[in-house]
Amino acid sequence: MIRTLAIEVPHKLNEKVFLQGWVYNLRPIGKLCFLVLRDRSGTVQAVLYDRADLAQQLREESVIELVGYVRRDERAPNGCEVLISDLKILSTPPEALPIQINRPRAALNTRLETLLEHRVLGLRHPEIGAIFRVQAELVHGFREFLTHEGFLEVHTPKIVASGTEGGTELFPVQYFDRTAYLAQSPQFYKQMLVGAGFERVFEVGPVYRAEPHSTTRHLNEYISLDIEMGFIESEQDLLALEARLLRHIFARVRERCARELAIYSATVPDVPDKIPQITLAEAQEILQERFNKQNAGDLDPESERLLCRYAQEELGCELLFVTHYPREKRPMYAMPDPEDPTLTRSFDLLYKGLEITTGGQRIHRYEMLVESIRGRGLDPKNFEFYLEVFKCGMPPHGGFAIGAERLTMQLLNLANVREASFFPRDRTRLTP
Amino acid sequence: MIRTLAIEVPHKLNEKVFLQGWVYNLRPIGKLCFLVLRDRSGTVQAVLYDRADLAQQLREESVIELVGYVRRDERAPNGCEVLISDLKILSTPPEALPIQINRPRAALNTRLETLLEHRVLGLRHPEIGAIFRVQAELVHGFREFLTHEGFLEVHTPKIVASGTEGGTELFPVQYFDRTAYLAQSPQFYKQMLVGAGFERVFEVGPVYRAEPHSTTRHLNEYISLDIEMGFIESEQDLLALEARLLRHIFARVRERCARELAIYSATVPDVPDKIPQITLAEAQEILQERFNKQNAGDLDPESERLLCRYAQEELGCELLFVTHYPREKRPMYAMPDPEDPTLTRSFDLLYKGLEITTGGQRIHRYEMLVESIRGRGLDPKNFEFYLEVFKCGMPPHGGFAIGAERLTMQLLNLANVREASFFPRDRTRLTP
Repeated sequence: MIRTLAIEVPHKLNEKVFLQGWVYNLRPIGKLCFLVLRDRSGTVQAVLYDRADLAQQLREESVIELVGYVRRDERAPNGCEVLISDLKILSTPPEALPIQINRPRAALNTRLETLLEHRVLGLRHPEIGAIFRVQAELVHGFREFLTHEGFLEVHTPKIVASGTEGGTELFPVQYFDRTAYLAQSPQFYKQMLVGAGFERVFEVGPVYRAEPHSTTRHLNEYISLDIEMGFIESEQDLLALEARLLRHIFARVRERCARELAIYSATVPDVPDKIPQITLAEAQEILQERFNKQNAGDLDPESERLLCRYAQEELGCELLFVTHYPREKRPMYAMPDPEDPTLTRSFDLLYKGLEITTGGQRIHRYEMLVESIRGRGLDPKNFEFYLEVFKCGMPPHGGFAIGAERLTMQLLNLANVREASFFPRDRTRLTP
Repeated sequence: MIRTLAIEVPHKLNEKVFLQGWVYNLRPIGKLCFLVLRDRSGTVQAVLYDRADLAQQLREESVIELVGYVRRDERAPNGCEVLISDLKILSTPPEALPIQINRPRAALNTRLETLLEHRVLGLRHPEIGAIFRVQAELVHGFREFLTHEGFLEVHTPKIVASGTEGGTELFPVQYFDRTAYLAQSPQFYKQMLVGAGFERVFEVGPVYRAEPHSTTRHLNEYISLDIEMGFIESEQDLLALEARLLRHIFARVRERCARELAIYSATVPDVPDKIPQITLAEAQEILQERFNKQNAGDLDPESERLLCRYAQEELGCELLFVTHYPREKRPMYAMPDPEDPTLTRSFDLLYKGLEITTGGQRIHRYEMLVESIRGRGLDPKNFEFYLEVFKCGMPPHGGFAIGAERLTMQLLNLANVREASFFPRDRTRLTP
């Protein structure tokens, strides 16, 4: 018999159906045993009549399959229920479960720590699982837009000989008899592939940051949505691309994830043709004048929140580009601003008070790049494999990266980025 | 002015166009300078008239942009050429290039070793770049089919606490003050996510094998196309799924990569509804009786080639499933065959003489799995984070993985799997 998903049951009134899934809820009342079956599509109520032998063997989270008849029942959640004619238990938890998940999330009364410890069970909670359906659509939207724009999807190595910044915050890997590192980003490789003639490339893959601090915004392994593009005129081409990209991604999520967005009271932002942008210097002025906040240079988390409050109140947008970071705050490959070479053609994108993107135009001239590397006290010899492409004819280019978990977190108003990673890796967490 | 791609030029006869790209070929003849411009779409001939000043500055692989007028020219490769009115050099190689790429691949006369050393330049060769356009379509087809079948795309950590097989062939990672490892496969995590209620998941991501040997079929880091699926009846559901999946993937490549396939004289296989399957015992019998080859247990590369020759000649198919591997040849999570518990419900898929897939049904009962772990001399305590899901109600399930580079290699008849990886990692290669 062909399987029916829970979500399809209301369309099968008066039909015989075959269902498979988990027992989400169990309520024996006399000769009746009501159960809610949960599968990947949702839940449906079913009722077992006069089968105490079977009902006794059922537990919450037992895996079952059943055959039954769909009948209208106004009291059931979907206006219908399945009268079970045949039920088979495929597997049953041998002991009590560490978390009882068939309650509203707010009633779970379980710390995030515990939910992550028992992650697989936690993910069964429909509200928690919903996060990853949204994330999959965000990533799908990212790929769909870029493929349509002539970008090639690439996969670059995560085991690398050296870091993009020269060795800090890298995880060492023992690679046979040598020490290698986990890539902090596909930065060098995506640039090289632009120069390899593909011009426009994107990658969805893991990146690694050996940052020892533990915050609600950082993961040590996360999914980076990376873009690099040749033949740009300035970083403004990238800002325009990201606005169009985000509009496409958000439109897809709005269309396909209404239920999931509702769970989190999340509103998909309207992305204007031109997302507001301010320079870092202007940002610091605003922070001082409007919020009386002195700022040394970097934008701290509070500054990011204040700037987004400003953007929302004054510019009517939840998104804000901050541009023109000084050279010493950006990597050696950042293109200096021709109008003020102490600054760079770089940007961050803030969304609801959090940086979700870093990007910019890159240096494409060999001599300038070598000089920039030396200026950081680094040895160009260590970057030879990267530098070669700049001796082979490199177009003006640039790109950016979006953190997939941060984008998910901000869209769904999650309190901790770990909630947007299936199996988060942090300072203390290597399992599950 | 809006950019025209090389491939679009023939449709712009008598129009003014703006092109950007690399100088693929340069041929000055008196006052004329013929050049072939290459961009991400292909090549087009252009001609510069009476501008010795500019022509002198051009080099092969210079990056240029030009404005010109498209005119018919029967002698030009596409039946048309661009008469240049304006040309700007964006960047020029400062020195001679290590490889001259504007010749047919066969005439390159360059060892693979050298091509990989100067990978970025090599990738500009249209025949080499074509490999990755095919690969991107293979991966796109994989995702498209599975998304349509209700599979969720997931991303699981590559930094793991222990190997799926207990510690062999793993790359150690220094993870803060602990030793972690690079994941050999997302095996545990994809199973856990089936059990987390997503039922059907897939992942496209890197996997790591610290195998010290150097062959034409192995990479130490490669892209694995992974699938896991709940509520299967046996491994036969997986074999049927893979046949449909491959048919979809190959149809997409056939439709979109005619040019690339022609370069490699590659024929996309017709995948039958049911790909032929033989048991490992039958395979060994065939090897002995037909090819007079004794075989100890594992299929060596020659055996894989001979079996595919047999499949092609006797069964009319380039693909062949080999099933029922013995337990000691399969990991601890492989489901024993109920009819002969010394065997497993596992399979490999051979394609043109090479294994491109390993898969099978997995054990879903906690007690059986713990026993199987102990049977390997391993300690279940080391797998606690994995075992938990089996105590929470786990459906019968299974899955498989396809090596993206191997699939590309076999389809395009490449001699070495390194050719199908942008930046291959092997025993001696960490750069580029």
